Amino acid sequence: MADVLFRVEGMSCEGCSKRLHTVLSAVAGVETVEVTLKPGEAKIRFDSAQVSEPALREAIEDSGFDVVN
Amino acid sequence: MADVLFRVEGMSCEGCSKRLHTVLSAVAGVETVEVTLKPGEAKIRFDSAQVSEPALREAIEDSGFDVVN
Repeated sequence: MADVLFRVEGMSCEGCSKRLHTVLSAVAGVETVEVTLKPGEAKIRFDSAQVSEPALREAIEDSGFDVVN
Repeated sequence: MADVLFRVEGMSCEGCSKRLHTVLSAVAGVETVEVTLKPGEAKIRFDSAQVSEPALREAIEDSGFDVVN
């Protein structure tokens, strides 16, 4: 298992953070997800044999949010 | 050109509707997009040679929203 913490810009309500949680949870290989609105962060535990950090970053950005780290 | 109007659930703030607008505008073949928060709707004009209605629906759902029509 690997862990990553992304700083995410663009979440402006609880609906945004719940939605990002839903999107990330649906990615194959993702074990646990914690998303916070303030500060805007997504903390992800994932199986690096199944999914990579760049792929997770892309999933966030494809949903219309920005990763700033 | 073809037009479609999706009824979208899950947008709860202006950030949500702007984000959906951004996501849809980035899809190849999409010409114009209008997204409204209340009612939750996405009106899309697209080139049906480049993108299909099911693909647009999928883009919305992949972003964590629900299409209810």
